[in-house]
Formats: sequence, C-alpha cells, structure tokens
Amino acid sequence: MLKIAIYGYGKLARGVEKAAQNSSDCTLFGVFTRRDRQAVQRETNAPTYLASDIFSIPENEIDVVILCVGSLDLPTIAPKIAERFCTVDGFDIHAQIPSYWQAIDERTKLHQKTSLVAGGWDPGLFSLARLVLECAMPQGKTYTFWGKGVSQGHTQALKGVDGVLNGVQYTLPKQGIIDEIRLGKTPDLSARDMHERVCYVVAKRGADKEKIKRDIQNMPDYFKGYTTRVHFVSNKTFQREHGSLSHGGKVLRRAKDGHVGEFSLSLLSNPDFTGGALLSCARAVYRLYEKGEFGAKTILDIPPIYFRDEDREEIIQTLL
Amino acid sequence: MLKIAIYGYGKLARGVEKAAQNSSDCTLFGVFTRRDRQAVQRETNAPTYLASDIFSIPENEIDVVILCVGSLDLPTIAPKIAERFCTVDGFDIHAQIPSYWQAIDERTKLHQKTSLVAGGWDPGLFSLARLVLECAMPQGKTYTFWGKGVSQGHTQALKGVDGVLNGVQYTLPKQGIIDEIRLGKTPDLSARDMHERVCYVVAKRGADKEKIKRDIQNMPDYFKGYTTRVHFVSNKTFQREHGSLSHGGKVLRRAKDGHVGEFSLSLLSNPDFTGGALLSCARAVYRLYEKGEFGAKTILDIPPIYFRDEDREEIIQTLL
Repeated sequence: MLKIAIYGYGKLARGVEKAAQNSSDCTLFGVFTRRDRQAVQRETNAPTYLASDIFSIPENEIDVVILCVGSLDLPTIAPKIAERFCTVDGFDIHAQIPSYWQAIDERTKLHQKTSLVAGGWDPGLFSLARLVLECAMPQGKTYTFWGKGVSQGHTQALKGVDGVLNGVQYTLPKQGIIDEIRLGKTPDLSARDMHERVCYVVAKRGADKEKIKRDIQNMPDYFKGYTTRVHFVSNKTFQREHGSLSHGGKVLRRAKDGHVGEFSLSLLSNPDFTGGALLSCARAVYRLYEKGEFGAKTILDIPPIYFRDEDREEIIQTLL
Repeated sequence: MLKIAIYGYGKLARGVEKAAQNSSDCTLFGVFTRRDRQAVQRETNAPTYLASDIFSIPENEIDVVILCVGSLDLPTIAPKIAERFCTVDGFDIHAQIPSYWQAIDERTKLHQKTSLVAGGWDPGLFSLARLVLECAMPQGKTYTFWGKGVSQGHTQALKGVDGVLNGVQYTLPKQGIIDEIRLGKTPDLSARDMHERVCYVVAKRGADKEKIKRDIQNMPDYFKGYTTRVHFVSNKTFQREHGSLSHGGKVLRRAKDGHVGEFSLSLLSNPDFTGGALLSCARAVYRLYEKGEFGAKTILDIPPIYFRDEDREEIIQTLL
C-alpha cells in the first residue's frame, strides 16, 4: 500500500482525499493543514496534523506527500518538504515551471528523493497531448483552448475592484475559432485571440456599475486586450447560479497534410478531477523513487505505465 | 543523425519514407523489399535492397529498422531482424500482442537490442489515451471507436483469402452508440457491438464468391463475430471508388462522477500518419538502446519525451 499524505487542505485536497478513499492500492496517512484543525471538514477519518508537523514525521511513515497549496505558495514550501519526502504537485504558472522545476530538482537529487511537478491537467495531461500530437505530426499547429470554466486568478483580481462585493470570472473558448480550425484553417493566434472572459459581479450597494465595468475591462495583465463581458447579478442569483466547479478544454492539432488530432476534457468538478490525476502521479513518483531515479520529474519524463496500479502484463493485455 | 532502414515496401513504408525525408534528425539508409526492386516506385533516392540483404548489412550501419510488413508476417520475420537491429513495428492484432511481445522480448534481451512493438495509433496512441484517461478517472468506462476508414490489417487479411484478387475493408463506428454514450449512458459493449466491417472485394476470375464471403466472415481475430458485409465489385469500380486511405477514431471515457475525456484522430492518410508515428517511435527506441534498456517495449513503457527530437529543456518550456 502506498502511504499518501496531503499537505494543504482546500478543494483540491478534498479531491485527492476522495480519490485515495476510492483507490485500493493507497492508504491515507493524514492531512497537514495551516488552518484551524477543529474547523476542517474532512472526507475521511485519517488524522489531521498541523502543517509544521510535516518536518517532524519520520521519513518512513509517508511514501508521497501530495502538495495541495496554491501555486504562489509552492516555490517556498515545496523544496523544503521535497527534502524529506517524495512529492507531487500541480504547479500551474506555466512561465515559471522551468525555474520551479530546477529548484526542486536540485533539492531532491541532493536528498535522494523524487518529485513530480506540474501534474494536473494543464500543465499535465494537456502537456502530454501536445507532445504526442506533435510527435506523430511534426509539421502542423497546436491550439489549446480552456473553458468554459472558472479562472481562480482572474476571479481574485475582479474581487479586488472598487465597488465589487462578490464575483466570478469564466474563461470561454471562442467557438468560431474552433470551427475555423476544424474546417482547415491554421491562423496564428494567442490565448487572448482564442478566448473570452465573462464576469458575473455582485456590486456593492450604491456602487457605480459603469465604473466597475470599465475598471475590470481595463485592468492590465488580467483583462485589458481580452474580449471581456461584465454582467451584474444580485447576491441571491450569484449564490444560486455560480457555485459550479466545472471546467474543461481541448488540445487541437492540425497537421500540414490535413490530419487532425484532438484531446478534450469536460470536467464536472475541476478539483476532484485534478485530485485524482495527482494521486495517479503519486503512484508513478514512488515507482521512480524505488528504482533510484531521484530528482524532479514532469509527466513527460515518466513511462505512462507507472501511473497505473495493475501489473504490466495486465495493462498490456487490456489497454494496449 | 538517426540511421533508419525500412523493411517491406508498401503504403506504410512510403509514409515512413516521407516522414524521414521531412525530419531533420533522421537519415534513410535504405529500403529492403521482397518485391522486384526495379518496379518499386520510391519517395527518395535512398538505395533499395533485397529483403534478405538485411541479414548481411553490418549492424553498425543501421540504428533502427522500421518493419513495414503486415502483422501476419511480423511474427516470423520480426524476431530474426530484431536480433541484429533495433526495430519498430505497428503490429496490430490486439489479441496476439502479449505472445508477439514476448517472442521479441526474449530475442532482443539475448542479443542486447531494443524493439518497440505495436507502435501505430491503435495499438499505440489510442493505447496511451486509454491509459491516461483511466489513470485520471479510475472509475468509469472507456470506449474505443474506429472509422470510418480502411483498416490496413483487415484489408491485408482479406486479400490473403483464396480467390480474392483485390479488396478493401472499411471499419465504421455505429453512430447511435456514440450518441448514447455522449448522452450519459455507459452500456457494456464489445468492439464488435460498436462497429461494423464493410468489405469491397474483387474476385479472381472463376472464384467461388460464396466461399470467399464465408472465408472472410469466419476469419478468427479479424472478422468472426463482427457484423461483416461483403460486397463484390469489378476491378474498374474498385480502382475508381476505393482509393481513399483516410481513417480515424476516438477513445471516449466517461467517469462514474460525470467527467468525460476524449482523444480523437481524423486522418487524411492512415499510412502516412502511421508512418510518421513509427518514425517517432524509432527515435524513442534508439534512446532506450543507448541507455542499455534492452528488450521489447510498447508505447506505454517509454517516457513520452523520448519521442521528440528537441532537448528536454526546450520541450518543458514550450509544451508543458
């Protein structure tokens, strides 16, 4: 049995916990949280520890720690934990992956541990799709679409706008562009050409809605330059209609000679799905560790068969 | 530069040859064929050899031999070649993969070579899709649909039937079943419930058409148990209407908790696409060989990054 621990306890951690509960080859050692341990509502009866306890638990008590803190916190926390335990995380700030990977790689090689970084669905499964589609069709163009789904970073940003009581931001792919590519066009596009941003906002009493709208649409780095639509709703409507955690997207590659390959996900709950993906990464990481393959890995570095719990012969027979 | 050779020269081989020509890290040593060398129309100027010459070419002249003979011939030919050279093939008789794999594995381990078996798109890319979708969503059901398209293996098989001059086999997914699954149903289905097989056959003069039909419909592993329709056409009609090499299909997984993942391919030319896929397998096989990882491998056993020609850092930066 693979002894799993969860570090950080929010929606993603709950997804990991559910996946571990449904898995016959994993056992949950416990959850480490910076929150008030009494207030944390858990999915299982496995014990809850203080976050700092992770540094005093003997190394042989836990096989893999799944890090469920946000990507902004990972660069400071992950390297320390990765000295003591194998780790898995879903670090998702694409531009910072190389430097993050390197920090973890140095630490884990020094301490003879193995970590998997950026193991969710994008980066993660979508990265794998981009790679295999490009390998099979070296000449062509790949497009990645996200949505419809809630973007956490943009939701945080719009909540900071003056006069906003509550809000949420959905990223939507532009369907017209997907259709164009499917019909054979291969335009040069940036993420901002391919998506629109739709905001549902609850305004504070007496706030200037036109000003809120302008402030959101002109916010640099987040909304400026994007097609951004802002809708105002009542708090009641907001609570009723905007609690969904669904997300999805697709990787679409069109080869120069006309072949098309597509990988798509439609997720009812983004954190539950990502939690399940991270648990299968834990399995793979521990196999690498047992083989003495230390250092930081990505989903692209690992034989796919390592992510599965059955033995090789059965996988070859049933899945190949 | 990776020194590639092609063994067997039909449509698939031509696809490999085109891909090699477009690839900056491969060079084509030559083509080995059992046909009349004068009559073979080639894509490049690389030399044409007699098939039997493969056993007298010095081992260091070729890095990887891509085997482009049919799956029925592979079990007798491949183990002998795999003693002398690293090999790649697209063996596609699913039920026989374990025994075929084992034969190649024994031979390659003994002679310290590396082979990749079953490296096309199914088995191959679709196997990888089935694996990763099951890893991320362990509870659910996976469906694989093929077509509409010509199945090379089945076409080869029906051409081997006594009395057949020429022929082609189309695999068609049953659209009603795809719709059912998309609507949320998860019926228990075998491949034969999900597809039908349609054969267009040119019979030899004086051949017994009823016997040909029976022989096709009762061929184990290929047609037996499927809804198989056999149509006889004239050679003229055949040449005019059955030249398309397009194919495609999809792997569809519906998780118990509602997530859906899908990987689909729509190929203008099946042999050209498969040829490109096999070439990227050659790259991966040779990397394993250089690391001393001998034996028979499948696409599921190999770190995905090995299939790509760029260096790791660039792949992480651009694709992850």
